[in-house]
Amino acid sequence: MSAFTAVDVIRAKRDGGVLSDGQIDWVVDAYTKGLVADEQMSALAMAILLRGMTGPEIARWTAAMIASGERLDLSSVARPTVDKHSTGGVGDKITLPLTPLVAACGAAVPQLSGRGLGHTGGTLDKLESIPGWRAALGNDEFIAQLRDVGAVICAAGDGLAPADRKLYALRDVTGTVEAIPLIASSIMSKKIAEGTGALVLDVKVGSGAFMKNVDDARELARTMVELGGAHGVRTVALLTDMSTPLGLTVGNAVEVTESVEVLAGGGPADVVELTLALAREMLDAAGLPDADPAAALRDGRAMDAWRTMIRAQGGDPDAPMPTAPEVEVVTAAEDGWVAEVDAYAIGVAAWRLGAGRARKEDPVSVPAGVVLHKRPGDRVRVGDPLFELRAEHAERIPAALAEARGAIRVAAEAPAVTPLVIDRIG
Amino acid sequence: MSAFTAVDVIRAKRDGGVLSDGQIDWVVDAYTKGLVADEQMSALAMAILLRGMTGPEIARWTAAMIASGERLDLSSVARPTVDKHSTGGVGDKITLPLTPLVAACGAAVPQLSGRGLGHTGGTLDKLESIPGWRAALGNDEFIAQLRDVGAVICAAGDGLAPADRKLYALRDVTGTVEAIPLIASSIMSKKIAEGTGALVLDVKVGSGAFMKNVDDARELARTMVELGGAHGVRTVALLTDMSTPLGLTVGNAVEVTESVEVLAGGGPADVVELTLALAREMLDAAGLPDADPAAALRDGRAMDAWRTMIRAQGGDPDAPMPTAPEVEVVTAAEDGWVAEVDAYAIGVAAWRLGAGRARKEDPVSVPAGVVLHKRPGDRVRVGDPLFELRAEHAERIPAALAEARGAIRVAAEAPAVTPLVIDRIG
Repeated sequence: MSAFTAVDVIRAKRDGGVLSDGQIDWVVDAYTKGLVADEQMSALAMAILLRGMTGPEIARWTAAMIASGERLDLSSVARPTVDKHSTGGVGDKITLPLTPLVAACGAAVPQLSGRGLGHTGGTLDKLESIPGWRAALGNDEFIAQLRDVGAVICAAGDGLAPADRKLYALRDVTGTVEAIPLIASSIMSKKIAEGTGALVLDVKVGSGAFMKNVDDARELARTMVELGGAHGVRTVALLTDMSTPLGLTVGNAVEVTESVEVLAGGGPADVVELTLALAREMLDAAGLPDADPAAALRDGRAMDAWRTMIRAQGGDPDAPMPTAPEVEVVTAAEDGWVAEVDAYAIGVAAWRLGAGRARKEDPVSVPAGVVLHKRPGDRVRVGDPLFELRAEHAERIPAALAEARGAIRVAAEAPAVTPLVIDRIG
Repeated sequence: MSAFTAVDVIRAKRDGGVLSDGQIDWVVDAYTKGLVADEQMSALAMAILLRGMTGPEIARWTAAMIASGERLDLSSVARPTVDKHSTGGVGDKITLPLTPLVAACGAAVPQLSGRGLGHTGGTLDKLESIPGWRAALGNDEFIAQLRDVGAVICAAGDGLAPADRKLYALRDVTGTVEAIPLIASSIMSKKIAEGTGALVLDVKVGSGAFMKNVDDARELARTMVELGGAHGVRTVALLTDMSTPLGLTVGNAVEVTESVEVLAGGGPADVVELTLALAREMLDAAGLPDADPAAALRDGRAMDAWRTMIRAQGGDPDAPMPTAPEVEVVTAAEDGWVAEVDAYAIGVAAWRLGAGRARKEDPVSVPAGVVLHKRPGDRVRVGDPLFELRAEHAERIPAALAEARGAIRVAAEAPAVTPLVIDRIG
């Protein structure tokens, strides 16, 4: 019989105490094995959300989640490995151009990604717009592609941090997603188990992000940077603005198209700026400070790496993207400047068009999404197109239109310019 | 589809908000029906424990729990009805002499009781020491006995507040028992659904009780008194000390024997004092302020009512109580005064001897328990018996002995006298 009980662990945290290493190791292991019930873990998660955890508690919790599964060994990869994680935002397609770009500059990027839930999209859902492309790779395939191509974006296998997989699904239905200790340990346990040597975090702040204010985002970033360091993974975080969607597209196929524009040396300025900022951090962390990612975009090396990466997973990089039969273009009703494009509302609009899913077993629509014609700071005149909505079925349009209309504010004066990268922690 | 979701309700309380009537009605009903999952309700219970509830929220939650089942109609009972509830303590056998005593004075007492879990005993477990006695009565039997005898102690039927039954079992395994809004609504939903016209609450304070300090106990008492009033049940609460066990016995058969001593006009002074204090409150609340419970103990009317009540449920009031084969008597190692007898430790000792149960499906031992020979304030000399442990099996003794030894402190001076009844709220 164990020296621990679930009720004692829950009570300790509920009453504001610090959990011992033994309590943390036991409860994470027992939950993974089904000895601690879902209703017990959800009560503990709520207590953690409201009472917090100390740095050492978060570190131990993360270690226990890593220990619940396997840790990949990437030592057979000759290049330095470096990964990137975004806490999720609207129109955040950065992983798509960034992964092949960093690989083209000499590092290897072992990117294990997820699917979208709610108003933020998922990298795997976007890439599945490409005919033939496969998200599921075995561990051996994953490592082989990393060695041969230097770039992989695929689904995390079942063997990595199974405690996190179980706990994440539970948090999603019990109102306990927004606990910084649990967000940090969830992200870092998967990234550390994946075996990467270095990690750059893109911690989003603003209406379209989980973290609505800079202080919470900074605390989350600091927590994760410390966790990475404690496990021998060089970790740096950028705090970046997510009050406005990234780029001009929010959806699946439309975001792939925009990513390919960036790889071709074009694309929206903010997507290029963030892609390059993250690429420089990743290359620095990988020990390649002299690499020039801007040049790799200009001279076609990043595009070559993209095409090789997509083909390695069965995709056809030259296949045309499917288009949506239903398109609604909305024009400006007044002259002025675009003062605001609210990321959350645009994310919800794209979700209502079918680009996202309500339940994790739902399919997503490939061509659905929002395409912006204007961004904050742009001048508009009456009749100029502001944005368009795309859907497979016309009945998706009205609810999305209601969301998106309220998202864009036109003002008589130009708005102040706000920086995309707010802070750097590492 | 419902306008509510479990996650939205959980988040609202988690973030310190006040739940709307609609949210409360929906979540209690949906949980009773299994549409809200255990892991969602336990997260909500933890949020309620840590964030609290306003008076109107608690009132609505209680009403929703009552509405989850039937409410008994006691209008066919000619006498005024009045019940008593204790929040639970060590050696708290008061319900046994009190119920027939109040009936003997002219009221009708519809006492729906529970079983023990953990270190506090259960009234039904104690009464089952009496050969032949039945705890389970149908609603019709319950009302008929109340009409004919004026006194019933039996198990609550499945039809009363089923939401509470389900939630109570969940709270027990998720560290969410100690939430005042949930304790108050649990107690009051059952008592209001039972149909009593008036109610006296014995809210215990001290080491042997759920409420360890007077402020928490007073808040719980006030909350319950208000809830009763809002539902038309005249409700009064006494705050009473539970740092020391009540009386000299803790167990099942031993507590029945002590209760019969009280009904015969004897018994320990503290048990008599509390029985009379509660009886007077109950008779007042029932509109019988001139009744004289002390006289009913002296002249045998209370004992007659006890015998009639026990017989009505198949019990033999003259049957001898079973005795324990294993008895360990512990004597004083020094001269002095008994300064303290810790209720919690004595409760745990009795539980280890077999008088209580670890899991709700376990049986309890009838003869097991602790018999005190001395109470706080008593003079002791080396070699005087302090207490005895009784068990059916010798291997139960050592662990109980370790608990009980530490419970009794002998000092060089007599302790200050502390009152049994601390406060009255109503």
